[in-house]
Amino acid sequence: MLRPGAERIARLGGLHRFMNWDRPILTDSGGFQVMSLADLRKLTETGVTFRSHVDGSRHELTPERSMEIQRLLGSDIVMAFDECPALPADRARIEESMRLSMRWAERSRAAFGDRPGHALFGIQQGGLERDLRDESAAALTGIGFEGYAIGGLAVGEGQEAMFSVLDYAPGQLPADRPRYLMGVGKPDDIVGAVKRGVDMMDCVLPSRSGRTGQAWTRRGQVNLRNARHADDPRPLDEDCTCPACTGYSRAYLHHVVRAREMIAGMLLTWHNLHYYQALMGEMRAAIAAGRFAAWEQGFHAARDQGDVERL
Amino acid sequence: MLRPGAERIARLGGLHRFMNWDRPILTDSGGFQVMSLADLRKLTETGVTFRSHVDGSRHELTPERSMEIQRLLGSDIVMAFDECPALPADRARIEESMRLSMRWAERSRAAFGDRPGHALFGIQQGGLERDLRDESAAALTGIGFEGYAIGGLAVGEGQEAMFSVLDYAPGQLPADRPRYLMGVGKPDDIVGAVKRGVDMMDCVLPSRSGRTGQAWTRRGQVNLRNARHADDPRPLDEDCTCPACTGYSRAYLHHVVRAREMIAGMLLTWHNLHYYQALMGEMRAAIAAGRFAAWEQGFHAARDQGDVERL
Repeated sequence: MLRPGAERIARLGGLHRFMNWDRPILTDSGGFQVMSLADLRKLTETGVTFRSHVDGSRHELTPERSMEIQRLLGSDIVMAFDECPALPADRARIEESMRLSMRWAERSRAAFGDRPGHALFGIQQGGLERDLRDESAAALTGIGFEGYAIGGLAVGEGQEAMFSVLDYAPGQLPADRPRYLMGVGKPDDIVGAVKRGVDMMDCVLPSRSGRTGQAWTRRGQVNLRNARHADDPRPLDEDCTCPACTGYSRAYLHHVVRAREMIAGMLLTWHNLHYYQALMGEMRAAIAAGRFAAWEQGFHAARDQGDVERL
Repeated sequence: MLRPGAERIARLGGLHRFMNWDRPILTDSGGFQVMSLADLRKLTETGVTFRSHVDGSRHELTPERSMEIQRLLGSDIVMAFDECPALPADRARIEESMRLSMRWAERSRAAFGDRPGHALFGIQQGGLERDLRDESAAALTGIGFEGYAIGGLAVGEGQEAMFSVLDYAPGQLPADRPRYLMGVGKPDDIVGAVKRGVDMMDCVLPSRSGRTGQAWTRRGQVNLRNARHADDPRPLDEDCTCPACTGYSRAYLHHVVRAREMIAGMLLTWHNLHYYQALMGEMRAAIAAGRFAAWEQGFHAARDQGDVERL
C-alpha cells in the first residue's frame, strides 16, 4: 500500500508478475499492520487513518479501500479488514473491537463482491473470551466466506493461552472451509495448532530467523552465532537434504553469520523453509494415515534430545 | 588469516571444502591488505606487524608466514608477499618499496617450494616508473614464477595513468605465462587492459556494485536506486539471459533496492557476474578470431548510447 503502492503494482501487472511468483498469494488486510502503529493511528467506525512510516504522509484504510488494494495487488486469498487489539486488553475493549471487526467483515464481503478463482477469508476475533469468539464465528458464518481465520492470537498472550483458545476456536468455524491461524509460528506452536484443527498458518519466522543466524531442526533451535560451532565440521542437520546442510559445515555457517555475509541469511533461510515444508508434509501424511498422535510423540521426543552434543 | 583463521580452515579441510567451491581459488598474500591499515602497521625488512581490525590483537606477516597461510587455505594460485605503496608516492619511496618486494618475492619462492598442481605468482611493482617496472620484471623473471602479476595499479592513479603503464608492463613479463592485473576493474578498465596484453584480473566490483544497487550492462552503468525506474516494466537489459533480467522488471529491482531487501543484492550480483562472464567470453572469442579491434569498437559504441531512454 505505501511502498511501492497498490496502483503502481497494478500498472505493472500485479504482484504475481512483479515478484515473479506463479503460485497462490495471500495478502493481509492491513488491520493487524495498522495496530502496530499504536499512537500514529486514529480509529473510527469508517476505518483507520494513520501516518506512513515511510514518508509521514496521511492515509485512510477502510474495508472498501483494503479490498481495492488487495484486488489491485492481484492476491488469490484476500483477508477481510479487521481491527486487532493488542493483548492483554479488558473484556469491554475486546468485545467492542470484535463487533466493529464484524461490521467491517460485512463491508469487506460487500466490497469484495463475486470474484471466481479468488477467495475472501473472514477473521474471527474475541481475544481469549470463548463467548465472544462464538459470537464472532456466528457473525462470520452468517456473512459467508471462502475460508475463516482465527485472528487476535500470537500477539503476546503466550502458547498456553493461545492453545486454550485453539481448544475450541476451530470447532466454532465451518469444518468444510480452511481454518487459518494468523501469525503462527514456531514449530511447536504449529504442531499444537494442527493438532487442534488448524489447516493453515503464516509466519515470518523461517526467513527472519535465517537472517539472524537462527536455524530450526527436528532437534530444536540452533543459534549459529554461538562459538561452539566455530570448529565444528558437521552439517547443521545430518539428515537434512537442503543446500545448507549438504554443502556446508556448522563452522562455515558460524563464520558467515559472524562476518555478516549475505550468504548466511540465504543458506539459513533456505534450510528453515526446507525444514518447515518437511514438517508440514509429515503432518499431512500422518493425518492422512490416521497416525498423528504417534507422529506428534516422535516430534516432541526428537526436540527433547536437544541439539547434537558439542564436539 | 584473522577470521576465521588459516589453521582453523586447514583443520576443516581447506577453503575449497569450507566454502563448497571445487574450482580454482586464487588468494592474495596480504601485502595489499596490510597497506590499507596505514598507521596500524609497522614495516621492517622481515615483514609487517599490525593490529587486527577484528579484536586488536598483534600479528606479524612475513613472506614465509604468507606462504604458510595460503598453503593452509589450500589455494591453487598463491600470490607472493609484497609491499604495495599507495599512490601518489615519490620515486625514492616507490624504488625502495619495489626492491623490498623483490627480496620478499625471492623469500616467497623459497618458502613456497615445489608444489605440483599449485602456482606461485610474482608481483611486479614500480609505480608509474617504467625503468623501475623493468627492473622489477627482470628480478621476478630471474627468480621464476608460474605466473606474473602487475601490482601497484588501481590504487587511485586513474585510468589514463594506469593504461600508460599497461602500454609497456605486460611486454616486460614472460609471454608464455599468465599476466595478471590485480584489482581491476570496471568493464572499460578490463577491456583496455586486455587490449594491452593482460590475461587475468580480479575485482570485487560485480558483487559490491550489486549489493549497492548498481548494475553493469553493455550500455554502461545503471543505478537502480534512481526514481526513473519506479514505474518501468522493462528488464534491466532486454538482451540479457540472467535470472534478474528474465524474471523481473526495473520497477521491481528499484523497489527491492530501496526497501533494502536481500534479494536486491542477490539478483544484481547475479546479473553483474553474468555480464562480466559474457564480457570475458566475448573478448576470448574475438581474440581467437583475430577481430578484437572490431569487437572493441562495438563495445564502446554500445556504451556511448547510454542506458535506454526513460519511458
